[in-house]
Amino acid sequence: MRRVAIIGTGMTKFGENWDQSYRHLVVEAGIRALTDAGVSGDKIDGGYMGTMASGRLIGQEHVGALIADYMGLNPIPITRVEGACASGSLALRQGIMAVGSGMKDIVVVGGVEKMTEQSTGEVSNALGGAGDQEWELFMGASFPGLYALMARRHMHDYGTTSEMLAAVAVKNHKHGTKNRYAQYQREITIDDVLNSKMVADPLHVFDCSPITDGAACLVLAPMEIAESYTKKPIEIVASAQASDTIALSSRESITELKAAKIAAEKAYKQANVSPKDIEVAEVHDCFTIAEIMAIEDLGFFKKGEGGKATLEGKTEFGGDVVVNTSGGLKAVGHPVGATGVKQAVELTWQLRGEAEGRQVRDAKLGLSHNVGGSGAPAVVHIFKRGY
Amino acid sequence: MRRVAIIGTGMTKFGENWDQSYRHLVVEAGIRALTDAGVSGDKIDGGYMGTMASGRLIGQEHVGALIADYMGLNPIPITRVEGACASGSLALRQGIMAVGSGMKDIVVVGGVEKMTEQSTGEVSNALGGAGDQEWELFMGASFPGLYALMARRHMHDYGTTSEMLAAVAVKNHKHGTKNRYAQYQREITIDDVLNSKMVADPLHVFDCSPITDGAACLVLAPMEIAESYTKKPIEIVASAQASDTIALSSRESITELKAAKIAAEKAYKQANVSPKDIEVAEVHDCFTIAEIMAIEDLGFFKKGEGGKATLEGKTEFGGDVVVNTSGGLKAVGHPVGATGVKQAVELTWQLRGEAEGRQVRDAKLGLSHNVGGSGAPAVVHIFKRGY
Repeated sequence: MRRVAIIGTGMTKFGENWDQSYRHLVVEAGIRALTDAGVSGDKIDGGYMGTMASGRLIGQEHVGALIADYMGLNPIPITRVEGACASGSLALRQGIMAVGSGMKDIVVVGGVEKMTEQSTGEVSNALGGAGDQEWELFMGASFPGLYALMARRHMHDYGTTSEMLAAVAVKNHKHGTKNRYAQYQREITIDDVLNSKMVADPLHVFDCSPITDGAACLVLAPMEIAESYTKKPIEIVASAQASDTIALSSRESITELKAAKIAAEKAYKQANVSPKDIEVAEVHDCFTIAEIMAIEDLGFFKKGEGGKATLEGKTEFGGDVVVNTSGGLKAVGHPVGATGVKQAVELTWQLRGEAEGRQVRDAKLGLSHNVGGSGAPAVVHIFKRGY
Repeated sequence: MRRVAIIGTGMTKFGENWDQSYRHLVVEAGIRALTDAGVSGDKIDGGYMGTMASGRLIGQEHVGALIADYMGLNPIPITRVEGACASGSLALRQGIMAVGSGMKDIVVVGGVEKMTEQSTGEVSNALGGAGDQEWELFMGASFPGLYALMARRHMHDYGTTSEMLAAVAVKNHKHGTKNRYAQYQREITIDDVLNSKMVADPLHVFDCSPITDGAACLVLAPMEIAESYTKKPIEIVASAQASDTIALSSRESITELKAAKIAAEKAYKQANVSPKDIEVAEVHDCFTIAEIMAIEDLGFFKKGEGGKATLEGKTEFGGDVVVNTSGGLKAVGHPVGATGVKQAVELTWQLRGEAEGRQVRDAKLGLSHNVGGSGAPAVVHIFKRGY
C-alpha cells in the first residue's frame, strides 16, 4: 500500500442553510477543496461520498452520480457509501484504499447531509434508521433515548454527573466560538445546560448535537506526489474500522463502544503510536455522554474517568489532549454524512497550523473518532504532519 | 494489484418473499455463499453490501452494521455502498479493490433489497430517487416514463418496433423458466406483451421489470489462494465504472448510455478482449429498451440494430452471445441493490458449468452490465474461467 496524504480541504458553513440545496452544499465544499489543493477537475480519478439518509430527507438516492454530475466530473465515477453517522469516515476509508492501492491517484472524498427540509419528527425517524429498526426504532427507542440509557448506566457505574456531561457541551461551545464554520458560535454555561429542556433523562437539549445542513470535502493523493500540490501534506497514517451489534440491548456493556476500542487499538498499531502521543482529537460527541465514552475508549483517560477529566479541563486547550477543537458535533453541528469528513478537515487545519483562533500549538499528530448510530460501526483515523 | 477470484456464490429465491425480512434475506444468501466457498466466518476480513433504498423501503439505514451483526461477523466491518440499481456492482468493485490492493484477503460482497413491504406508489417514489429528484421526479417523471422517452426516440431514429421490445421480454422469460431462483418461471409470447397494460407508451407492463425481494452474495479471494478453497475459481478480469448526467434531459443522446459505453471500453481494455469474445452476458434489462441499448452500447451489435438482432434470436442460446441466461431483471426480478451481485452469481455459475438447464456450453468468458437509474453510473465487469 502506498502512503496517502490529504492535499486539499473544503467545507461549507454548517447550520440551517435554507438557501442551499443538497447539491449546492456539496459543490461548494468540493470546489473549495479542489481550489485548496490547486487541482483541476480533469486530474480527479474518482470519488467517494458519505451520506446517510438522503432518500428520507430529500427524496434523492443515487447521490454519487448526482455529485459527479454537478461537480462537472463526468465520466469520472463517484460512489456513495453509507454507515449512518460514520458515513463520512467510511467514504474517507474508501478513498484511502483507492489511492493506497494504486488504483487511483487523485481522489475526492466528501460528506454531506441536508436535514432541515423535513420536520424534526421526520428527521428523528430518519435518524432512527441508524438503530435497529425492528428492535429499537419501532419500539420507540429514538437516539436520545438510546444514549440516555448509556449515560444513566455510566452515572450508576462510575459516578459520572450531569455537571460532567454539561462540561462537554460547555467546552465544545467555547471552541465553536473560534470556528466560523460552526452552527453555534456562542458560549454556554453548565447552568445553561442543566436548565435546558430535558429530552431523555439525563440528557438535556444542550447535551444533544443539533440538526444541521452541511458538506465537507477532502482531496487525497499518494504521499510521493503530494508535495507537488501542497507544501503542507497531511499524511493519513492509520485507518481502522470495526463493527458491533446494531442493537444496544445485544451488547456486553453499554458504557463503552467496543467497536471504537477495537478500531482505536488497530489504528494505534498501524500508526505505531500510543494514546498519549495524540495532541488533538475530533471525537463523535453526538451527545455529551458520547464524548466521555470516546475519550475513555480511545485510551486518553481510564475507564470511568472521562467525565471527571472533562470537568477538570483535561480535554481543553492546555490539557492532556485537546478534544473537539472545531466545536465538535455539538457546536459545529452534525449533518450526519458530513461529520466524519469535517473531522478530517479540522485535523488537517490543525496539523497545517491553519486553525485560526483555536490552533493547538505545533500539533503534529491528530486523531478522529467517528461512530455510526449507537456504536456500530466505529472508525478511527490518525493524521500526521507530513512536512 | 493482485488478481481477484470469486470462490463462493449464494442467493435467495427472488420474488415476493413475504416470510423473509431484509435481514433474513441477506443472511440466507450470505450463508449460502460462505458454504459454497467452504469458508468459515472467522476467515472473513470485511464486506461490502449494495442496497439502494432501505431507508425508504424498510425504515433502516446503517445496513452494513446490521448485516455484520446478523451474519455473526462482528467486529469485522461491512460497508454499504449505494448507486441506485447499480449498488450491487459498486459493492463488488469495492470488494475487488479491497482484495486486489492486498488490504484484505477474504471478502464478502452482497446486494439486497426488500421492496414488497411498501405500496407500489411508495416503491415508485423511492425508485424515483434514482433520478434527478429536483428536475425529474418532482416534475412527475417516474422511471417507466424516462425509459419510455428513450424507447420512443430509439424507435424514431432506428425503426425499433414494439415487437422487438417484446422479444426481449419473451427471451428473458424463456430463460427464467430454467432458473429456480427466478420470480417468474413461465413463458410469455410477443402477443402477451403487446396486449398487456400500457404503463408509459410504448412500454407495456411486460416491458418492465417487477418489484422484488431478494439478496445475492459472493465470496472473493486473491487468485493465488483461490484454489485452496475451490476447484473452480472464477477470475474477475475487468471492473470499470463511469458516470453520466443524472438527468436524462442533460444528455447528448438518449438512445445510448454514454457511461455504459465508456465503462465497457475500459473493461475490454483491462481484460484485453473484444465484444465478440464474450460468450454470455448479464445486462441491465430494467425495461426491454434497456437491454436493446445495452447490447448496442457493449458493442455486441451495431447502433440501432439491437432490436432487430433480438427479434432474430441473436441473443438467445445458439446466437452470437447469450444475453441474460438467468432471465434478467425481467424474469428473475429486480431487487435493486441485489441485481448487480446476482449478475455476477449467474455468470459464475455459467463459467463453472453449473447453470443447470440454461448452461451456455463450455463458456469461458462472461460480462455483466449494471446501470444505476437511467444510466449514471454504469458498471461493467468481465469474468473468466480461472481453471
